[in-house]
Amino acid sequence: MALDRLIEKIVEKQNPTVAGLDPKLAYIPDFIKDEAFSRYGKTLEGASEALLVYNKALIDALYDIVPAVKPQIAYYEMYGWQGVKAFYETVAYAKSKGMFVITDAKRNDIGTTMEAYANAHLGTTDVSGETFSAFGADALTVNGYLGTDGIQPVINVSQKMDTGMFVLVKTSNPSSGELQNLSLCENDETIYLHMGNLCEQWGKALMGKYGYSGVGAVVGATYPEQLTELRQKLPNTFFLVPGYGAQGGTAKDIAGAFDANGLGAIVNSSRGIMCAWQKEQCNPEEFAMASRREAEKMKQLLTAVTGEITLPYQ
Amino acid sequence: MALDRLIEKIVEKQNPTVAGLDPKLAYIPDFIKDEAFSRYGKTLEGASEALLVYNKALIDALYDIVPAVKPQIAYYEMYGWQGVKAFYETVAYAKSKGMFVITDAKRNDIGTTMEAYANAHLGTTDVSGETFSAFGADALTVNGYLGTDGIQPVINVSQKMDTGMFVLVKTSNPSSGELQNLSLCENDETIYLHMGNLCEQWGKALMGKYGYSGVGAVVGATYPEQLTELRQKLPNTFFLVPGYGAQGGTAKDIAGAFDANGLGAIVNSSRGIMCAWQKEQCNPEEFAMASRREAEKMKQLLTAVTGEITLPYQ
Repeated sequence: MALDRLIEKIVEKQNPTVAGLDPKLAYIPDFIKDEAFSRYGKTLEGASEALLVYNKALIDALYDIVPAVKPQIAYYEMYGWQGVKAFYETVAYAKSKGMFVITDAKRNDIGTTMEAYANAHLGTTDVSGETFSAFGADALTVNGYLGTDGIQPVINVSQKMDTGMFVLVKTSNPSSGELQNLSLCENDETIYLHMGNLCEQWGKALMGKYGYSGVGAVVGATYPEQLTELRQKLPNTFFLVPGYGAQGGTAKDIAGAFDANGLGAIVNSSRGIMCAWQKEQCNPEEFAMASRREAEKMKQLLTAVTGEITLPYQ
Repeated sequence: MALDRLIEKIVEKQNPTVAGLDPKLAYIPDFIKDEAFSRYGKTLEGASEALLVYNKALIDALYDIVPAVKPQIAYYEMYGWQGVKAFYETVAYAKSKGMFVITDAKRNDIGTTMEAYANAHLGTTDVSGETFSAFGADALTVNGYLGTDGIQPVINVSQKMDTGMFVLVKTSNPSSGELQNLSLCENDETIYLHMGNLCEQWGKALMGKYGYSGVGAVVGATYPEQLTELRQKLPNTFFLVPGYGAQGGTAKDIAGAFDANGLGAIVNSSRGIMCAWQKEQCNPEEFAMASRREAEKMKQLLTAVTGEITLPYQ
């Protein structure tokens, strides 16, 4: 199952980091934008070209030390279909470098519509007998508000394609508790725990060989207590942890997300890694090397918490 | 506020129908596909061209009697960025014909990421001082699992752009109750009612002149009891009602969704309208006229329930 591939990459690189590729024009050095605008104008196409050139340089600088990237599709959709094309090319480039790609799209729907999303992002599309990969990521973030009807199609595609998903459980934002922290009369569980338990259930159809299923959960670094609680209660659910760095989560905050092997979670950093050159105030030409330095620093902080990361059952 | 524009179009056409544009290749007559494949091959581009030609013909056949269309973006994403381009062109064409466009994308995220989605689908995108409309719909469906942080950015863009949203409240699918029907200890409300009450609260920032806000709710035709309950408890929340027709909902089932003026809801039909030519077994060349006949039939069934639809406060 697909999260096995992610787990193996984490162990190989000894690094539970996923680099978020959420590019904004403001993050991109002027020399890249100037070049893109000179070719395509100050247009959606020009902006998309700048995003792609920037992303490729970051991937080149990171792929041997960071196991995974997580492009957030909203930052590409805002540049129209031209941006979505840059998204497609970013996913393909990261995969060509051996990175595990988690498309952060939080898709949700039911039945054949959810099947269309699952095929778009993880599976294949049939055109009168010809088969294409529309976006082709390794895992997709999804929102479980619609229940099993919204998850089963992703399970089906994942069984076929060796891919996986991360379901929103306890998100990193300040207002996540408005709904997620409320308690259910039926079983006295919080909504986030109920959603987590659903992940455990759904995951049975996608169990991997390292004890984790292909149905992971999104749990924010900004809620250390819940992260620890959920790690204990959801033994087969791998966590994608946003909210580290810019949103305030520290390496100490996410200590509870890991199991005894240093597995169980991958921690996302977007702005921290992408904007390292601005924080360092280094030569903009060296932006990618600044990102690599930041990723190395993050790896050290995280592995100080996890210790050596090892595969179980060996 | 944007739903005022929708309400005015519903009254003008005396028709509370939104035509779902969820095109599958299997729905499209061969002569359209053959033409598209002969130009672009059996490729993602060829499929996308077929979708677009089909959609435009449907819009041409419907725009004077149906007030709104609801393209479901999953069916375009599955054809890659090429499909997303056809989606963009579909939205633009429907708007050029005066239709109100609801993008069904169920987007959800937080902060600047949700702002990117809101700008992508409802607002504008800045490229170093130049302004573009990436997709430019009139309303967007969203998922509220993340709380206010995921809704506020859509409110902000909607205030600026005169647009609106529909939040998932009680969805039409069989498993929607797994989460949505559970009761909260805090207030003994079901989750769907709690989400509906949040819509009422969020809507205060987008109140329109006909008593409905720019924060609508998605409530399925397949749950008539909840539809009636929510209509009574959410007086300022306009409903987008999926699940009519192919999913089993009838005109009688959705009677409770309307207020005394025949307003309060717009009912979606996708397959029913799109595949009318297959059901009629008519000449495939006349597919668009078959869709128009089906839309007229649906209008009659719905207005038999609503009676004359009138603007309040006149």
